[in-house]
Amino acid sequence: MVGLGYWGPNLVRNIAGSPATELVALCDQDEGRLASVGASYPSARTTTDSAAVLAADDVDAVCIATPVSTHHDLVRAALESGKHVLVEKPFVTSVEEAEQLVALARDRGLVLMLDHVFLYSPAVRRLATAVQDGELGDLQYIDSVRINLGLVQHDVNVLWDLAAHDLSIIDHLVGRLPRSVSAFGEAHQGHDLVDVAYLHLDYGDGLIASVHVNWLSPVKIRHFLVGGSRRSALYDELDPSERLKIYDRGVDSTPDPESRRRILVSYRSGDVVAPALEPVEPLRAMVEHFADSVARGAAPLSDGEQGLRVVRILAAADRSLAAGGAAVTLDAGGGA
Amino acid sequence: MVGLGYWGPNLVRNIAGSPATELVALCDQDEGRLASVGASYPSARTTTDSAAVLAADDVDAVCIATPVSTHHDLVRAALESGKHVLVEKPFVTSVEEAEQLVALARDRGLVLMLDHVFLYSPAVRRLATAVQDGELGDLQYIDSVRINLGLVQHDVNVLWDLAAHDLSIIDHLVGRLPRSVSAFGEAHQGHDLVDVAYLHLDYGDGLIASVHVNWLSPVKIRHFLVGGSRRSALYDELDPSERLKIYDRGVDSTPDPESRRRILVSYRSGDVVAPALEPVEPLRAMVEHFADSVARGAAPLSDGEQGLRVVRILAAADRSLAAGGAAVTLDAGGGA
Amino acid sequence: MVGLGYWGPNLVRNIAGSPATELVALCDQDEGRLASVGASYPSARTTTDSAAVLAADDVDAVCIATPVSTHHDLVRAALESGKHVLVEKPFVTSVEEAEQLVALARDRGLVLMLDHVFLYSPAVRRLATAVQDGELGDLQYIDSVRINLGLVQHDVNVLWDLAAHDLSIIDHLVGRLPRSVSAFGEAHQGHDLVDVAYLHLDYGDGLIASVHVNWLSPVKIRHFLVGGSRRSALYDELDPSERLKIYDRGVDSTPDPESRRRILVSYRSGDVVAPALEPVEPLRAMVEHFADSVARGAAPLSDGEQGLRVVRILAAADRSLAAGGAAVTLDAGGGA
Amino acid sequence: MVGLGYWGPNLVRNIAGSPATELVALCDQDEGRLASVGASYPSARTTTDSAAVLAADDVDAVCIATPVSTHHDLVRAALESGKHVLVEKPFVTSVEEAEQLVALARDRGLVLMLDHVFLYSPAVRRLATAVQDGELGDLQYIDSVRINLGLVQHDVNVLWDLAAHDLSIIDHLVGRLPRSVSAFGEAHQGHDLVDVAYLHLDYGDGLIASVHVNWLSPVKIRHFLVGGSRRSALYDELDPSERLKIYDRGVDSTPDPESRRRILVSYRSGDVVAPALEPVEPLRAMVEHFADSVARGAAPLSDGEQGLRVVRILAAADRSLAAGGAAVTLDAGGGA
Repeated sequence: MVGLGYWGPNLVRNIAGSPATELVALCDQDEGRLASVGASYPSARTTTDSAAVLAADDVDAVCIATPVSTHHDLVRAALESGKHVLVEKPFVTSVEEAEQLVALARDRGLVLMLDHVFLYSPAVRRLATAVQDGELGDLQYIDSVRINLGLVQHDVNVLWDLAAHDLSIIDHLVGRLPRSVSAFGEAHQGHDLVDVAYLHLDYGDGLIASVHVNWLSPVKIRHFLVGGSRRSALYDELDPSERLKIYDRGVDSTPDPESRRRILVSYRSGDVVAPALEPVEPLRAMVEHFADSVARGAAPLSDGEQGLRVVRILAAADRSLAAGGAAVTLDAGGGA
Repeated sequence: MVGLGYWGPNLVRNIAGSPATELVALCDQDEGRLASVGASYPSARTTTDSAAVLAADDVDAVCIATPVSTHHDLVRAALESGKHVLVEKPFVTSVEEAEQLVALARDRGLVLMLDHVFLYSPAVRRLATAVQDGELGDLQYIDSVRINLGLVQHDVNVLWDLAAHDLSIIDHLVGRLPRSVSAFGEAHQGHDLVDVAYLHLDYGDGLIASVHVNWLSPVKIRHFLVGGSRRSALYDELDPSERLKIYDRGVDSTPDPESRRRILVSYRSGDVVAPALEPVEPLRAMVEHFADSVARGAAPLSDGEQGLRVVRILAAADRSLAAGGAAVTLDAGGGA
Repeated sequence: MVGLGYWGPNLVRNIAGSPATELVALCDQDEGRLASVGASYPSARTTTDSAAVLAADDVDAVCIATPVSTHHDLVRAALESGKHVLVEKPFVTSVEEAEQLVALARDRGLVLMLDHVFLYSPAVRRLATAVQDGELGDLQYIDSVRINLGLVQHDVNVLWDLAAHDLSIIDHLVGRLPRSVSAFGEAHQGHDLVDVAYLHLDYGDGLIASVHVNWLSPVKIRHFLVGGSRRSALYDELDPSERLKIYDRGVDSTPDPESRRRILVSYRSGDVVAPALEPVEPLRAMVEHFADSVARGAAPLSDGEQGLRVVRILAAADRSLAAGGAAVTLDAGGGA
Repeated sequence: MVGLGYWGPNLVRNIAGSPATELVALCDQDEGRLASVGASYPSARTTTDSAAVLAADDVDAVCIATPVSTHHDLVRAALESGKHVLVEKPFVTSVEEAEQLVALARDRGLVLMLDHVFLYSPAVRRLATAVQDGELGDLQYIDSVRINLGLVQHDVNVLWDLAAHDLSIIDHLVGRLPRSVSAFGEAHQGHDLVDVAYLHLDYGDGLIASVHVNWLSPVKIRHFLVGGSRRSALYDELDPSERLKIYDRGVDSTPDPESRRRILVSYRSGDVVAPALEPVEPLRAMVEHFADSVARGAAPLSDGEQGLRVVRILAAADRSLAAGGAAVTLDAGGGA
């Protein structure tokens, strides 16, 4: 485990706690933090030397939870030493870096996985099933709101910090890149990092997705709404008793047989179901999925390819912000 | 009263019920509806002839709640007959029509008022006071969500139908036109009217406003969030016991005196106050404000000028939608 | 219609609006109120003489919404004139009066119905179906909370005022009198009418029901929770989008086959379903059920017998309050 | 630390994490659990021999989180060895045992503290201030609802398990024993332990308190409502952003100067304030309060005397349950 800041110790706790993994070494530049976390895991060695960890013979896989600016070098070094890698989001800060790492992992036959933890929550697992099984019908819109009084970052804007989560879920549900991306936002904290932002994705075929992220909101909201032609779903991370609801309510439209120009609209008002969800901790499930992917040599759900797609969208969003909100096209080949 | 469809009878009830107004005549093309509504107001005459009502000597003021395509002709006829006018939103369907009517009312010295009913709610009155008195500090962002399974319209898209409300509140709080407008949306009901849409307004000076409107959402949300440099506010029309909350929570940032490049960020976690609000019905207050504006010869809060600004924004939004979301500039002179 | 105070005009609106009923006459002691309400219903005559209305030849049925102290005399007079009666809750203030009126209606073959309006809400209709069809299994507990800053009454305490609603719903679901009743409460407003109260009903067979009513609560809560051996349900009048939820969550217990003294407990965590409900106004449905009961000569859901059972429980509750909360037994014959 | 079941490890984490305390030894009968917890705290010794821990020279204070049936013997042994004690609720199962332990701690000059953790939450600290400073005026009623699908216990009923929390908060706010206690409940799980229960306390002077606890409820509710003559408060443990709200809403009543028999009632509709609360973890605050009480030789907030008062009420509740809900008087001398 490299990086023991805000997020790292949560990963450590799950790595140490899962029967699928063994915690071998802890690494951080800050000796105090290293000692403090290390005290709880006496069987793991501690070090400030990340290169040594990345190259150690008794290490099969590395988890990286350091500042994003260091991700590229650390992940590359780990892959080059033949280690499987789980890396915190945001992945890296450019499409080129992401492409390079994805290619490297592929060439070496190693698992490269992103810490897109919400994919492993029971609510998103169930939501993905509803989409894949056609329970929702054709997807029409996705609207995600992730706002709260958050830690204003100094290295990435609010889109790279927060929307990476929403984009990983949207990517998982939709399974392809949008045709174009536009973004709108503003920076208020005296530097130029946008802290309130809106991101719009046009997927074609009538499907749009939007994300509102905000570090300044006094209220905390996590609403992930998916509208389909048959049913709709709301995933609310903050409602512990009904995290996912599936609504059999909607609007049906059919062409009027008597007139080509008119549409007949009708409204459905059906049941709302909050499906029972397994009481699984997403972070634990993610760590075990990583171990399982390594063991099976299989691509994880949040693999480097997904990480690359998310970076592609975020990079396009930055370009749209710089261009006053103009849509930035993503070609199918993957260029932004 | 001209137009007794969905909204008209609510106006009628308040016109008849207020001591400030006298209900003289009811007009609708549909004789059944006319008879049905008229039965409750025996002292008012009923007619299908709108021209007669608009020209009647015993009529001082006309309320118009007909389909938007008829607004321009009816309002013009009323103003030309020397009647004050209260007209349902959306005002008209083009900037030119709005400009013409505003000029006509000004020339004749008549009150032309829009039915922007939320301006007259106690929550918005109190919110406007908080903004004007500097309680919130400098405005940073406004975010409004107005979504529910709504009546899909056949004449206007969801922005003209629903966002007119949000724009009237934003206009009232901000008091000026935005510099530019961009919009993003999609039509799903087989015709070309957008039913899920996002509207972004750039007001300059760090202030942005966004509106999400949606006719397809299975959940009903009315969240109007105003972020300021000192405090923030949330107006939730659906929370009857705490419609307005003012949050003394936020992020403060000051330049680091030791380094030009760094910013020191600190977080406030203060009280949340839901101010006591008068138990006033907005519609009643609006009708009485109309009567009072007529009596005093004063411009109402939601005057034709505001109606024109809202139409300007909506027309720009349509152009942005057509242009794939590109920002459309509004010049200060008022052109779109 | 006799009595045009707070509640009467709501009944009038529905009587006048339903095709099943014709509004013939309006009666109130207060001439101003009579004129004000009457103005909207020009086809109905107005009078301050209730005796004349109760005896009028063109009146088939009478609705009574006067202060409770007048109910007994008015209902008796109406029944003696051969009129069917719908009377506001609480029915009357003593078991004897209730028994007398029920007997009178039975002897005359007339419909005597209580204005237990919540029975006619789609949520309670669906809840009753769930109970009757065994969807909930055996009932284990009912817990109803009906609290808000309410109009402190001067003639009846909070149990007679508010708990009458809860008791009518409980009676409808359970279909029998409890074995015993106990009550706990306190008066705070300087007179001796209890304004915060708890009522407990022991139905035997493991079923208990409790009601908390409170005129002083700053928060408004309407929670009606029904626990069953198979499923449980929550009816929340204040949640317009999910008024009824059925929970497939619970505790199952079975005797341990290896030991007589132990019990094996297991937990179910199943789906939560908010069934689609018809968009019916309860008051309208109640008025039409009254008309239908009269037309068919059938007993309404909230007939005089139910009114009598509710009065029996409330009278027992008063005795329990006076006795410091001691349980008061209700014998099956109906004595309190 | 003696007892490493469900609750113990939470205490251990805070004892180890606080600078005010040093974790010396861990004790549990279950060797697996001992090893598992112990692995994270390598500097603490582990043992299955509680007697040895309670007598160890390097131990100043003992935390006990074992089944309630063992509390009396363990606490007594600890006190007799001169150790300060923090013991999990419920304290013990009889008034006599509680009295004996309180007397023993007093005689030895040792701190005996109950693990009434909610007293140390910022919301309850602020609520207590509001009561003590007269912000709420005279207390009129307290209503606490603590229901959810809970772990059905095999050794104590739902009152001893859950209501101990509510009673500790009520005791802290009111500061005296009630005059009488009544209880109502039912057992549904095949054994005789009540799983749905209501507890009523009469404090005299117009103050009543009620507690609803329920192991079978499919919904989780934590509502603690305090009604005062000036203001009221709602403490909702499950609302992380507004755990405490103070309502300046209420009913005022004054005698009518013209008539002795009438009361004039008026309603206040003032602001609602959710005060900013310190982001303190209650468990951490409790452990540090214990350490501080030991250091200063002062009585903690949740001292043995409070534990005794809570046991007195619970024992009276059991007697009331057995007597069909009859009120059980608590004399001021403390007998139940």
